[in-house]
Amino acid sequence: MTRDLTITEVRLTPILVADPPLLNTQGVHQPYTPRLIVEVVTAGGVTGVGETYGDSKYLELARPFADKLVGRQVSDLNALFVVADEVAVDRGRVENQVDVGGLRGVQTADKLRLSVVSGFEVACLDALGKALGLPVHALLGGKLRDQVEYSAYLFYKWAHHPAGVACEKDEWGAAVDPAGVVEQARKFTERYGFTSFKLKGGVFPPEEEIAAVRALAEAFPGHPLRLDPNGAWSVETSLKVAQELGDVLEYLEDPALGTPAMAEVAAKTDVPLATNMCVTTFTEIQEAFTKGAVQVVLSDHHYWGGLRNTRELAAMCRTFGVGVSMHSNTHLGISLAAMTHVASTVPNLHHACDSHYPWQSEDVLTERLTFEDGSVKVSDAPGLGVELDRDKLAFLHQRWLDDDGRLRDRDDAAAMRIADPEWVTPTVPRW
Amino acid sequence: MTRDLTITEVRLTPILVADPPLLNTQGVHQPYTPRLIVEVVTAGGVTGVGETYGDSKYLELARPFADKLVGRQVSDLNALFVVADEVAVDRGRVENQVDVGGLRGVQTADKLRLSVVSGFEVACLDALGKALGLPVHALLGGKLRDQVEYSAYLFYKWAHHPAGVACEKDEWGAAVDPAGVVEQARKFTERYGFTSFKLKGGVFPPEEEIAAVRALAEAFPGHPLRLDPNGAWSVETSLKVAQELGDVLEYLEDPALGTPAMAEVAAKTDVPLATNMCVTTFTEIQEAFTKGAVQVVLSDHHYWGGLRNTRELAAMCRTFGVGVSMHSNTHLGISLAAMTHVASTVPNLHHACDSHYPWQSEDVLTERLTFEDGSVKVSDAPGLGVELDRDKLAFLHQRWLDDDGRLRDRDDAAAMRIADPEWVTPTVPRW
Repeated sequence: MTRDLTITEVRLTPILVADPPLLNTQGVHQPYTPRLIVEVVTAGGVTGVGETYGDSKYLELARPFADKLVGRQVSDLNALFVVADEVAVDRGRVENQVDVGGLRGVQTADKLRLSVVSGFEVACLDALGKALGLPVHALLGGKLRDQVEYSAYLFYKWAHHPAGVACEKDEWGAAVDPAGVVEQARKFTERYGFTSFKLKGGVFPPEEEIAAVRALAEAFPGHPLRLDPNGAWSVETSLKVAQELGDVLEYLEDPALGTPAMAEVAAKTDVPLATNMCVTTFTEIQEAFTKGAVQVVLSDHHYWGGLRNTRELAAMCRTFGVGVSMHSNTHLGISLAAMTHVASTVPNLHHACDSHYPWQSEDVLTERLTFEDGSVKVSDAPGLGVELDRDKLAFLHQRWLDDDGRLRDRDDAAAMRIADPEWVTPTVPRW
Repeated sequence: MTRDLTITEVRLTPILVADPPLLNTQGVHQPYTPRLIVEVVTAGGVTGVGETYGDSKYLELARPFADKLVGRQVSDLNALFVVADEVAVDRGRVENQVDVGGLRGVQTADKLRLSVVSGFEVACLDALGKALGLPVHALLGGKLRDQVEYSAYLFYKWAHHPAGVACEKDEWGAAVDPAGVVEQARKFTERYGFTSFKLKGGVFPPEEEIAAVRALAEAFPGHPLRLDPNGAWSVETSLKVAQELGDVLEYLEDPALGTPAMAEVAAKTDVPLATNMCVTTFTEIQEAFTKGAVQVVLSDHHYWGGLRNTRELAAMCRTFGVGVSMHSNTHLGISLAAMTHVASTVPNLHHACDSHYPWQSEDVLTERLTFEDGSVKVSDAPGLGVELDRDKLAFLHQRWLDDDGRLRDRDDAAAMRIADPEWVTPTVPRW
């Protein structure tokens, strides 16, 4: 009876996973970050797993959503969006707010819903694949490549979280200047074989970050480089950076905030602009594509509502002559497996994808995914090809249960204020 | 071993099927029209069926394409487009030519390839569904409705094909004036329960066709009406018709030829414009959507490269605020089943689809699909839910074999010249 695809149970497990003190323009990562692990169980006895944001507003939406799925088929993927529309969202709480200081773009009720859907969609695909004996990529029309290339996701970081804060130790050391960034890049290369590099910027004044990218270019001549200040710069500053780094940049990611500013930058530089901030939903596409504001969309299956929507986004990019790659927030192996499956099916994926995964020392899988030559091998095992480790899941869930609430919602500014009580979230443009 | 999805054999069977003397701006349907039936056989012993255009230039491409599929998996649907790119097309023969006097839009090598791919894609989906025990709609993410609504596809027609021409008799009689059109509509309604009506126009001067639509509006008050002259009108004439029929038209289909002309019409009327002529490939979308040239795209899974591409097209329409419905050329039950499956999965299908099927007295299925209350029920049987009748297929293939070549390529102008030797294909705009 493994073929009975009816959903009999949905399990939601919020967890807190260790996160190093990575810096961005809004502050610093907290020592632990929330994620939500979704399990969908079928009448046939198959369990599919998914992963998405775990902040409380996602959890609040995920619970009623989960209730509505029981009795449905894991193959009813189109209906997930119909179900999502039925789940009430407190619009006053989310509309026109920003998420994590704007790092996930403008927040809307629909986007929140899609981020929740994505966790369930991946879990359903995993269960469906297991029940049918097919890998997830086959459910998406089949892989077009055997491995998916990722880039080294470099961060300015402190050596440690602030003293006195409960945290896990990390082995990466500090990176607060060009030499530190290059050393981090070397470690990434040695360990994982990455050949392209993205630096999360917007942390230090542009000239320091320009110097860091220059140092990377010297250390890794000819390798694709990217810089992402998360919209921290004015149009003028963006153009200045584009001019100074144009000869070494694969693309500049979200230099300025919002489609009008990005369009202004794009009109005056030949450096391609990438985004995961001004095009994060289908409703934002028309304006951005019509204005030529972006040349590469960094898709994120969490934002966009799952792997099938990611493919639709890629098709739109293809149709409008816009490049496509993949964005990453802090995520675990389930999401990396999901990203790898969908990425393997997208014909027009011409840039290495981003992934935070190397920064995550903890995971909920029995076996971590590995990078070889900067790539993840596409699994041909049924479903995602990953296995949940229940002990690890229970351990990370207990951490979530034990938390007093301060870490259940990601807040990079709050983390920064522990080190610097005077810290005020910068207004944008910061430079 | 039904689960072994490897393709071991691909069978291509060109056929000629009876077609009534339906009129359009380019001439009249020949008494028989070519179609290609595709069968994909798996190592597991499952056979999937597909259907596409059968004109010789499609056949020439289908044969090498079929050879390349043997040894692949029926689940490798993304790879069909890679394989298609490897099949050589004699570009000189197709580029910038028009197909059937332009009724299928401008012809390109890519479009020809996609039309061939579609037959194989549907056959692979049918085989995959049968092997997995899932209906095709489930392979597309699951149906969102239990039946798909179609419109009555009304044609000006003669009572008979020209005397002396080999043909099958049809029972529909003549329709060459408003009364004849209304009578045809009544028959359609009585037999199939259609509630919306499309008239193929561009046959008579616009005032006669306006009168026919007015007669339909009086006979069926409040029912959605459409008129499609296949681009036969000037911008001025298009606007005049839009003005005169604006109160009763659901939309006006391809009044003028090409995106610039359509954009000009669209800018000056509130009547929505639909198309299956100026937006027939992904490369035509950007200009048409940016210019606001069309308000409804009539998708055709044959043109667009299959059911999965049709869903991507629908996603793009949704994203750009453009409506979506379905176009139909002469087709049999396999394609009607395929259309119904994909249509059932498209959330933004807000118009009844077109279908020629009622005009086809012959089919290759053991059991014809039926319309009830104007709709086709979505099959939940594995695959498409249709069964090939080998005797019927052999009979219609024999007709193709026996043909001296005159009917193997659809040519509405040639058919018209039998009745009227002076007939010259009209230049566009005709009025």
